[in-house]
Amino acid sequence: MTQQDFLTTCDPAAAIPPATATRQRYKLTLAYDGTAFHGWQKQVTLDGQPLRTVAGTVEDTLRRVLRQPISLVGASRTDAGVHAVGQTAHFNADTTIPTERLATAINSRLPQDVEVVSAEPAPTTFDAISDAASKQYRYRIHNTTRRPLAIRHTVWHCWIPLDTTAMAAAAARIVGTHDFEGFAAASHGRATTVRTVLRCEIERHDPELHIVVEGTGFLYNMVRIIAGTLIEVGRGHFQPNRIDQILATCDRRQAGPTLPPTGLCLEWIKY
Amino acid sequence: MTQQDFLTTCDPAAAIPPATATRQRYKLTLAYDGTAFHGWQKQVTLDGQPLRTVAGTVEDTLRRVLRQPISLVGASRTDAGVHAVGQTAHFNADTTIPTERLATAINSRLPQDVEVVSAEPAPTTFDAISDAASKQYRYRIHNTTRRPLAIRHTVWHCWIPLDTTAMAAAAARIVGTHDFEGFAAASHGRATTVRTVLRCEIERHDPELHIVVEGTGFLYNMVRIIAGTLIEVGRGHFQPNRIDQILATCDRRQAGPTLPPTGLCLEWIKY
Repeated sequence: MTQQDFLTTCDPAAAIPPATATRQRYKLTLAYDGTAFHGWQKQVTLDGQPLRTVAGTVEDTLRRVLRQPISLVGASRTDAGVHAVGQTAHFNADTTIPTERLATAINSRLPQDVEVVSAEPAPTTFDAISDAASKQYRYRIHNTTRRPLAIRHTVWHCWIPLDTTAMAAAAARIVGTHDFEGFAAASHGRATTVRTVLRCEIERHDPELHIVVEGTGFLYNMVRIIAGTLIEVGRGHFQPNRIDQILATCDRRQAGPTLPPTGLCLEWIKY
Repeated sequence: MTQQDFLTTCDPAAAIPPATATRQRYKLTLAYDGTAFHGWQKQVTLDGQPLRTVAGTVEDTLRRVLRQPISLVGASRTDAGVHAVGQTAHFNADTTIPTERLATAINSRLPQDVEVVSAEPAPTTFDAISDAASKQYRYRIHNTTRRPLAIRHTVWHCWIPLDTTAMAAAAARIVGTHDFEGFAAASHGRATTVRTVLRCEIERHDPELHIVVEGTGFLYNMVRIIAGTLIEVGRGHFQPNRIDQILATCDRRQAGPTLPPTGLCLEWIKY
């Protein structure tokens, strides 16, 4: 699905013209625990039942709080089980709720696993998707034999000792502008698979190991496949130069597994 | 591959005890996320269906791993939703599984929300309940307007600013040997309500506030009522000397509310 398709599909009300001069565009920063959501994007089952999604939940709440139809456009379509501390979205509304009270008003009606971090007026031209300059994701690996227990939905448990020096060497090879098709799920559906990774680093936060990836854009499952490939390096199954081979061949089969969504968190989007 | 898959695949016969085994008492230290359990104690519904409890789950697993009937005795009957990092239990079994492999063998069959921290042989006379010298509980309060999100099942959210100096003064008045009936749920069902609290302190771990209580024994809901009373002091609804009044009158109605189980964790039991 192209970005244009995405906008047409999920933004049916985008064509609604501003009704009055007071109609305003807003920028929302959202945090959520993705465990109980079927991802960001609004979805229905085959028999037309709406699934519980972050966009659907927030949009419904905005509609009730602001008492008007709302169309919410999110910057990143996070998958089911993926978390966010800094997702960004925009919408248009005509409201007399003072801006400084807007986040509290929305939060008072939101369920406990999603939160508006901030709500602020934005220029009419602000677009959460196309204005995004870069995004940062963090993949958390619980790297000890002890179980994560209460935090098990926000980390991925890997009890095998990992060679972080080799992982860091491999991570450094991911940085740059490359064709990342070898790191994308087959169903990515994008015209071009060239992306720019600005940063890819390994951080130790004992007993956790974090893979931090900043990029201008990402393909479907790209961070989870990068993380799965770096784990294979850390276990000694791949050499760090395996990265060059995957980038050169664009062969998904050369890369590591797609790690589970639980460990992944969208940290921030820079505009 | 999960740890469970790994062990099941590579070591299916590891748990079969040969006939030469001798009967031994074992001491287990357990950690669990209480969210999805109906508390520690084994229970059945009115129509005889077993509820999912920690004791029931661990006992079933021990039976499968050790291939014999097992009766598990836990030191503290934690309520539904209450967590533990250091629950203690004992059981008797005949097994030749080497002690150093016992915890791993049990963990390989346990669900992801409960873990054996250690399993060790104990004297035949060891009793998890009556040998306990003291226990420590921690009540975690998420004291900020921001939502707890991923950790919402392990804290209690109180966004109201709290006066920790007043709370600490009140907490100090709880320490000592007192009749704690005013801090017990009506259904405590104990002959004597005199208990000794060895330590009751307020710890700041921004943005969390912890109430740490060590005692020789506790009445039903006692820690959650102590926490609810200290919150009332922190909000300015009660003065610290309200504690003396509750202890003197033994009147439950003078104390604060019973806080939800989510924030409570059994930290350790000293023998």
